[in-house]
Amino acid sequence: MGRRLFIGIDFGTDSVRALCVDAAGATVAESVRAYPRWAEGRFCDAAASRFRQHPLDYLEAMEGAVREVAGACDAARVAGLGLDTTASTPCLVDGGGTPLALLPDFADDPDAMFVLWKDHTAVDEAARITETARSWGGADFTAYEGGDYSPEWLWAKALHVLRTSPRLRAAARGVVEHGDWIPALLTGAPVRRGRCTAGHKAMWHASWGGYPPPDFFARVDPLLLPLRASFPAETFTADRPVGSLSGEWAERLGLPAGIAVAGGAIDCHVGAVGAGIRPGTLVKVCGTSTCDILVAKGDVPRIPGICGQVDGSVVPGFIGLEAGQSAFGDVYAWFRRFLGYAGEVSLAALEHAAAALAPGAGGVAALDWLNGRRSPYADPTLTGSILGITLATTPPQVYAALVEATVFGSKAIADHLAAHGITVDRVVATGGISRKSPYVMQTMADVLAMPIAVAACDQTCALGGAILGATAAGAFPDVPSAMAAMAAGTDREYRPDPGRAEQYGKLYERYKRIAQTPHPLNSLTS
Amino acid sequence: MGRRLFIGIDFGTDSVRALCVDAAGATVAESVRAYPRWAEGRFCDAAASRFRQHPLDYLEAMEGAVREVAGACDAARVAGLGLDTTASTPCLVDGGGTPLALLPDFADDPDAMFVLWKDHTAVDEAARITETARSWGGADFTAYEGGDYSPEWLWAKALHVLRTSPRLRAAARGVVEHGDWIPALLTGAPVRRGRCTAGHKAMWHASWGGYPPPDFFARVDPLLLPLRASFPAETFTADRPVGSLSGEWAERLGLPAGIAVAGGAIDCHVGAVGAGIRPGTLVKVCGTSTCDILVAKGDVPRIPGICGQVDGSVVPGFIGLEAGQSAFGDVYAWFRRFLGYAGEVSLAALEHAAAALAPGAGGVAALDWLNGRRSPYADPTLTGSILGITLATTPPQVYAALVEATVFGSKAIADHLAAHGITVDRVVATGGISRKSPYVMQTMADVLAMPIAVAACDQTCALGGAILGATAAGAFPDVPSAMAAMAAGTDREYRPDPGRAEQYGKLYERYKRIAQTPHPLNSLTS
Repeated sequence: MGRRLFIGIDFGTDSVRALCVDAAGATVAESVRAYPRWAEGRFCDAAASRFRQHPLDYLEAMEGAVREVAGACDAARVAGLGLDTTASTPCLVDGGGTPLALLPDFADDPDAMFVLWKDHTAVDEAARITETARSWGGADFTAYEGGDYSPEWLWAKALHVLRTSPRLRAAARGVVEHGDWIPALLTGAPVRRGRCTAGHKAMWHASWGGYPPPDFFARVDPLLLPLRASFPAETFTADRPVGSLSGEWAERLGLPAGIAVAGGAIDCHVGAVGAGIRPGTLVKVCGTSTCDILVAKGDVPRIPGICGQVDGSVVPGFIGLEAGQSAFGDVYAWFRRFLGYAGEVSLAALEHAAAALAPGAGGVAALDWLNGRRSPYADPTLTGSILGITLATTPPQVYAALVEATVFGSKAIADHLAAHGITVDRVVATGGISRKSPYVMQTMADVLAMPIAVAACDQTCALGGAILGATAAGAFPDVPSAMAAMAAGTDREYRPDPGRAEQYGKLYERYKRIAQTPHPLNSLTS
Repeated sequence: MGRRLFIGIDFGTDSVRALCVDAAGATVAESVRAYPRWAEGRFCDAAASRFRQHPLDYLEAMEGAVREVAGACDAARVAGLGLDTTASTPCLVDGGGTPLALLPDFADDPDAMFVLWKDHTAVDEAARITETARSWGGADFTAYEGGDYSPEWLWAKALHVLRTSPRLRAAARGVVEHGDWIPALLTGAPVRRGRCTAGHKAMWHASWGGYPPPDFFARVDPLLLPLRASFPAETFTADRPVGSLSGEWAERLGLPAGIAVAGGAIDCHVGAVGAGIRPGTLVKVCGTSTCDILVAKGDVPRIPGICGQVDGSVVPGFIGLEAGQSAFGDVYAWFRRFLGYAGEVSLAALEHAAAALAPGAGGVAALDWLNGRRSPYADPTLTGSILGITLATTPPQVYAALVEATVFGSKAIADHLAAHGITVDRVVATGGISRKSPYVMQTMADVLAMPIAVAACDQTCALGGAILGATAAGAFPDVPSAMAAMAAGTDREYRPDPGRAEQYGKLYERYKRIAQTPHPLNSLTS
């Protein structure tokens, strides 16, 4: 077993990363390829929040990255492959499961491509779904997804593109998530719906027998009925193999034919696997935004105002819980960009100056909702604020206030989960900010009054994919065993400073009072 | 009469300006001299808000500036001289009326120097005066000065320096405002208390027979009693000559001996004279802060929350009303300095980009209290805010929001005055911002929904001094006649754009709601 290798493929927003590890999780090779059409800005219109990705981008980038990794390792030893993608990133498909943009007739039609997670063109359709869920007289199918159906999610996006043209409606026989399409493609097996995206983005829940019934979709818009008919009730956790790598794709990727291919799942969830999640451990993926992942055993009560809770979405046999902040590193990047109007300044320089300040940012305070609020209680209409400004206020003070606010936002999520019985005894941070910003991580430890360990891996998502691939290949009996052998350890830990923790405790109480103060620009729905 | 010349001397915070004009107000010569010791930062401690000016700074700078002007005009034709100073800027004096710092024993003692208007060392003493005024059982002597005695004002500052040392207490026989000392010095006449500073800064009011009685000061602190004894009940408007220029000073200044010297008054009040103030005209001095000056005839009810209302403080025979914003141009300068952390940026570039935006600053809003609030209802503890920030927020949007907020702050003052029966039918702006920033002035016109005329003079304060000097010299029967002949006209007018005015009307309502929303950093006392 120790001699076998596993590959994880992490489809991100801009690029795909392939990682080859051994059965102890040690990196053997890795490679990254950008999506070529996406890099040119094709098929997108940022002003209209339209973000589309051509399926060929995924295929070409995957082929390049995996071939390079296969060439850099003993490819014959590769025994399994797993993957993660962004979500919800769905695409209309024909009767054979082929994304419409791969057909010559639709090759340049953005509505026939994958609708990227952050695309916001389906606002009207999402509102229609939420309204129907509340009023139709049956179950509220948004109950385990936070209570509002998002424009970022599968059914809203599918309806939006269906509505755009009769040609698409005539050709479409189904809709498939990026993460469900890739395994079907690589194996030649029929599309299999992954539990993770189905439960978090498509209103699948065991308690109502799977997806909402056709009657519900008929009330939303009958256009959805043919698509709904293509969804069987059953969904699958990502550790179970979808099939084995086809001869065609084995050749294209430079890997042995017949190796196990795991199911796809959402990037942050798979990253939590890569970071070795277990009950009581909050895995905090700290990047441009945050994704806060927990797993819990047994009967978890419904928690309002989080992104979702889905049985098996992270680790089979556990309820996976997802919350998050809609801007985290993006807030710091915004401020650097803002100052960049006058001249280049590095975040490192700002951090250095901010870290020298006492808690409280020299009297400045901020609200971190520069991209709305995701958890607790999603509200995309909220905005950020900077308060306490005087004629002596400096950029390092404002930067410190922004960092404090984003970290207070993290504490608000942890407190919300704790109030609903989900306690955290360990935090493992991963993602770019966790490895690049000691100042943010130390502030996180001080504010949460809890040590923050940092995963010793720059690519926990791809590593999680490899762990799922290894489990699918039968190298381990289950995901926890695979994680025990392969998941990233931690290579640094930030311990709270008791004095600063006490000061931040008071400042956090003030942050909550600020957050609870509505003003004419933030009406505060909850 | 047309052949006579008049000199105005404007003592500012950093320098003194001398202006020579003819009887039509046309500039004949001008000169500026910085205060040499002040320029070196001597006797000050910004961290402790201690700002002191040596009397020799005033004398040396005045001598230099006036001599230069005298040398550049036909000095024999000069018939009168008037002046303005900052206030309250008082100094302890000996029995002969000499500032203690001019005595060898006290030459280097900051507490024996003039305590500049913005010095905040007398916070405790001001609180003691306010508390006594409210509790002593007699009249509230702060009633016509806004209801709170300020640390920036005469009695608080005098008490503060008296408390510092037995030596000073032993030597001090009185306290004199900068604006009252200079005319006494130039003429050799005894110190005469000017109505303007007495009424705005020293609790003088005709209704209680002048200054508060000794019994009141005994309760504040008996240390003040000897000083109080040196204040006669009578005060004088600035148009009445204090005396005639002494031979000694005529020689030092290069002017004819015996010419009339008017009384001193506060810079912005004298600036309003230079701008030709009359009932219904708001003269808005727009510089680092704003000073809003009005005059009204007859019985003006007490207006709460403004800086003061004093009979004759601006134009004899009219009630002078003063309000203001504690930061205006300083807000714009702060933002430039803030961006300057990253690199130099010009306000002109920001203005150009901001002026291209529609009202509403791209969704950003601000509160303009970066230096606290002066009017309506002074509260130095308030701070500024920037709201509505998103990841797309740009510096020009924030700059526009800051400009809108400062101008909304101006409208709040105008509305407050109107609510108390003081209506404005014409606005004349003067001061640096009025001539440098068409964007701010156009926004002011749009927000006030009223044309804004700009005084055609860069030095309305010095011009006002010359007008008072001309009146004191008998060249005109009264200040209104002198203003009619000599005051600055206006050389540009900003007219409101009806569409923008309507949009700003709604945004102003929102500003008021923001301003009325307390949050943990702004407790909002009223």
